[in-house]
Amino acid sequence: MDAIILCAGKGERLRPLTENRPKPMIPIAGKPILENIIEKVEDLVDNIYLVVKYKKEVIIEYFKNHPKVKFLEQGEIDGTGYAVLTAKDYVEEDFLVLNGDIIFEDDLEKFLKYKNAMALKEVKNPENFGVVVLDDENNVIELQEKPKNPKSNLINAGIYKFENEVFEILKDIKPSERGEVELTDAIKELTREKKIKGIKLNGYWNDIGRPWDILDANKYLLEKIKTNIKGKIEENVVIKGEVVIEEGAIIKANSVIEGPAIVKKGAIVGPLAYIRPNTVLMENTFVGNSSEIKGSIIMKNTKIPHLSYVGDSIIGENCNFGCNTITANLRFDDKPVKVNIKGKRIESVRKLGVIMGDNVKTGIQVSFMPGVKVGSNSWIGASCLIDRDIEKNTFVYKKDELVFKKL
Amino acid sequence: MDAIILCAGKGERLRPLTENRPKPMIPIAGKPILENIIEKVEDLVDNIYLVVKYKKEVIIEYFKNHPKVKFLEQGEIDGTGYAVLTAKDYVEEDFLVLNGDIIFEDDLEKFLKYKNAMALKEVKNPENFGVVVLDDENNVIELQEKPKNPKSNLINAGIYKFENEVFEILKDIKPSERGEVELTDAIKELTREKKIKGIKLNGYWNDIGRPWDILDANKYLLEKIKTNIKGKIEENVVIKGEVVIEEGAIIKANSVIEGPAIVKKGAIVGPLAYIRPNTVLMENTFVGNSSEIKGSIIMKNTKIPHLSYVGDSIIGENCNFGCNTITANLRFDDKPVKVNIKGKRIESVRKLGVIMGDNVKTGIQVSFMPGVKVGSNSWIGASCLIDRDIEKNTFVYKKDELVFKKL
Amino acid sequence: MDAIILCAGKGERLRPLTENRPKPMIPIAGKPILENIIEKVEDLVDNIYLVVKYKKEVIIEYFKNHPKVKFLEQGEIDGTGYAVLTAKDYVEEDFLVLNGDIIFEDDLEKFLKYKNAMALKEVKNPENFGVVVLDDENNVIELQEKPKNPKSNLINAGIYKFENEVFEILKDIKPSERGEVELTDAIKELTREKKIKGIKLNGYWNDIGRPWDILDANKYLLEKIKTNIKGKIEENVVIKGEVVIEEGAIIKANSVIEGPAIVKKGAIVGPLAYIRPNTVLMENTFVGNSSEIKGSIIMKNTKIPHLSYVGDSIIGENCNFGCNTITANLRFDDKPVKVNIKGKRIESVRKLGVIMGDNVKTGIQVSFMPGVKVGSNSWIGASCLIDRDIEKNTFVYKKDELVFKKL
Repeated sequence: MDAIILCAGKGERLRPLTENRPKPMIPIAGKPILENIIEKVEDLVDNIYLVVKYKKEVIIEYFKNHPKVKFLEQGEIDGTGYAVLTAKDYVEEDFLVLNGDIIFEDDLEKFLKYKNAMALKEVKNPENFGVVVLDDENNVIELQEKPKNPKSNLINAGIYKFENEVFEILKDIKPSERGEVELTDAIKELTREKKIKGIKLNGYWNDIGRPWDILDANKYLLEKIKTNIKGKIEENVVIKGEVVIEEGAIIKANSVIEGPAIVKKGAIVGPLAYIRPNTVLMENTFVGNSSEIKGSIIMKNTKIPHLSYVGDSIIGENCNFGCNTITANLRFDDKPVKVNIKGKRIESVRKLGVIMGDNVKTGIQVSFMPGVKVGSNSWIGASCLIDRDIEKNTFVYKKDELVFKKL
Repeated sequence: MDAIILCAGKGERLRPLTENRPKPMIPIAGKPILENIIEKVEDLVDNIYLVVKYKKEVIIEYFKNHPKVKFLEQGEIDGTGYAVLTAKDYVEEDFLVLNGDIIFEDDLEKFLKYKNAMALKEVKNPENFGVVVLDDENNVIELQEKPKNPKSNLINAGIYKFENEVFEILKDIKPSERGEVELTDAIKELTREKKIKGIKLNGYWNDIGRPWDILDANKYLLEKIKTNIKGKIEENVVIKGEVVIEEGAIIKANSVIEGPAIVKKGAIVGPLAYIRPNTVLMENTFVGNSSEIKGSIIMKNTKIPHLSYVGDSIIGENCNFGCNTITANLRFDDKPVKVNIKGKRIESVRKLGVIMGDNVKTGIQVSFMPGVKVGSNSWIGASCLIDRDIEKNTFVYKKDELVFKKL
Repeated sequence: MDAIILCAGKGERLRPLTENRPKPMIPIAGKPILENIIEKVEDLVDNIYLVVKYKKEVIIEYFKNHPKVKFLEQGEIDGTGYAVLTAKDYVEEDFLVLNGDIIFEDDLEKFLKYKNAMALKEVKNPENFGVVVLDDENNVIELQEKPKNPKSNLINAGIYKFENEVFEILKDIKPSERGEVELTDAIKELTREKKIKGIKLNGYWNDIGRPWDILDANKYLLEKIKTNIKGKIEENVVIKGEVVIEEGAIIKANSVIEGPAIVKKGAIVGPLAYIRPNTVLMENTFVGNSSEIKGSIIMKNTKIPHLSYVGDSIIGENCNFGCNTITANLRFDDKPVKVNIKGKRIESVRKLGVIMGDNVKTGIQVSFMPGVKVGSNSWIGASCLIDRDIEKNTFVYKKDELVFKKL
């Protein structure tokens, strides 16, 4: 048994987080989405084929030493079907296929007893997904792509088990109108010839479509951690709840940490800092004096040295926050924070901070409004109130109109 | 012996604090002004008649279970005399009359030995008050209302003892030019017929005329408290001076409290917060990480979660302070802070912060200039410098003029 | 043996720090530059003649009780030569001459064995200094003033040993074009008649030419201190590294201090404050809640009460920082911070904050850009972003353009 994991996509809805990494490499609960998936399959299969393309080097660098992982590059043709086909010459038996950008709770063993099967998730808004219709014996009989009037509330959860013969079907699938070979077209074909079992997932499932899904999945995964403190804890540090502090991390004097939270190796917290629940500080981050981080992911090497507040935010790598950089995460009217996703203004969740790419520098006393996105490599000048998205490689600043009087 | 307490007024000089409550219900040292008064009289009298009108429901709700308290509503006619007359049919013997908006130290027993008496307070600026002139035997012989050239430095302190017959005099008093029946007109009449003793108060007395009087009275009352800690105190909390922490309050880790201060039930302080002398945190307030409160009254349900400073201020109920909301409380020139009181710009005291109504929300990094007033239900946008009074139900915001450059 | 120390200059390149004191009185590592020098010579000489002029009262007041110190006022004529000549009638034997504004490490005993000698320092940029050329026996043979093509990388370090006869030479030196009698002209004359030994300094030497030299010398001197805690240390204070806390200083609860640092008598730190390495808090300073000071000199009586950050800065006496005053100390492009020195824009060092005179008051939420200078007695209004130098006696403020909407 082998597994094919689809990791080639561009993740455009997650910009700027995907500017320098493919979506499966976004860290959730301390490791890439993809690593969470690999941990689910690695004991069940002989080989794990990662089908890569966009920013593939980030994936290869991270997983190159995994004994079961092999990398296959998807060619010119896009689409999940073509991605699976990329593995045709390597996979000799039955195989699992998984989207590379989902966080899910269910075990995968239950798929193995069927020749062909696919995971389904019950949702409230099936019209936004690929809907799956089952017969009385839970065999798939119809697939609908974002239907206006869905025939079921079960959606395709992006996890499949196939017989090797599925490659033969895939070979003959014609590209869709947008030029992609879709795995779902092969499944439609399969339902005509064979049985494909629909398996409803019972546990948490999130396809990480929008930035706030990352924070939701982060919260879900952090609920499972157990306290494990290997780093250095200085005087008068108070730790509550479940907290992982890796070896090589330092919690400096008089800081307070409320779990669940993860502090990765090389990270420095404090002195006098405050880490609140559902926070992950990745490797070599720094959160200093009087700074407070809540419900956020701070990627590696990012520094938040003093008097700053970051709430419900995702901050990329190598960022540097000027003293007193503050994120807002709530609207006065208590309505969901709005975020621009691929040009559309979308309602997200009640509390959402800033979504920031890599290598961003903020000046002192910068304010970010809720749901703002900041592209990589940008500089935000001192004292700016950022109430709109900032493109990558942008220098934003303001000049105060000052009045001078002689005393 | 009964007591009549005058609680019907609108308290306009104390706007916005009186927008949603009558002046006697403003909390000082952890309870309404009126409760402080009732505690002074409840052991001396059989019945306490609260004469109410403006926002009467707030008073009734609070005191409805007090065994001696009865509520009487003042009718169409205004004025302190008409207020007392409201109780005519209920009061059968001699009675005390007290203004419902004074904080005073003297015991009231010394009034009881006279048939008619009134309290006097020696002040430096009698021209702003009702002035009382005494004869050699301390009997009142003349009343002057805000006289340009006061004949004495004794003023009417708003506490009286009367015989029941005074009701008969009051009945015949004609409304003044502004349409109010004044108690002082009855007293003038009384001085012609009978003796009315002037009793000089020795202790603290404050008629809470302007917002900063609230803070002064608060300081006076807090000087008398004794440490009583019933709430939960977490690790590394340091408490100095006299501090009351009620059951159900929590002082979270690594916070510092310097008394005198009162933290009421349900309030949360910290972690890493700093409460300074002369502060009262009412029920269910929250003062969080790195926030500092000094010499201020924070009314119930108000949240000041992080990196904020509130000094010499009065903050209403249900307010929410965005991260890094800062009050200034001192002028560069060290002169008294100026405040608008009923349309006039008045000098207050050297240190005064913000006077805020209820349900106000501030964005992140808002600055308030000294002596500014903010009406209830208003929203103050992120990063605004508020240097003038804000009306109630107002949304104030600014937009930074930003310069964008490609890097 | 006597010493003459030259302390008459105006120190214009160090404005605003020299607005109210001569350069030798700028405190470094807890005491004036001049005191550091006097400690170097006081055991070697009988009399120390301080030649004073600009702001001489500050020097006299500070050193008037030193048993060996005498004050001589330089007359109308300027220049180091004329300064030395001022002492002619007082000095009877050989003598040392030292510039009053240098911080150096070498002991002075090695000068005493020569009749005439001068200290030299090897530098990388001799073209900015007085260059000295030696013969094979280390005798001075030529002096070049800021030469375009220096003949050596040894510069005049401002420390000399002379025979008494040098006064005779000095007497005959004519004023230079700019009207000053220069000591170097006498040395040139001396080299023609006698031998003057060049002595290379091995240790640290800094002529404190620009503001950031002060911070560099401060760092050098702080590296030598040893922990000595005489002040009061409250609960949960954490102290690391070498820290001097003088008697009468208080470190309040839950503060963190990382040495090397000096806290002088009467200074108050905390509660909940953070002092970082290379900081000196002079007498009666106050650094309060959540404030952080790093690599800075805070002169006496200055208050930084709350939520402020001062990094790599020099702050004069009697300043008062509004809550949340923040200094930036780093450029986005990581290039050296630029500073105006006598009308020219000069590159300084990578990290430099603000250089502030005396009696400055800042409002709440003021931001200072790196390398900005603020003249004495100025007021910086709330919420201002200060991105240029501020003259002394200036009131700077801004008014936000606010939008008002009815809710």
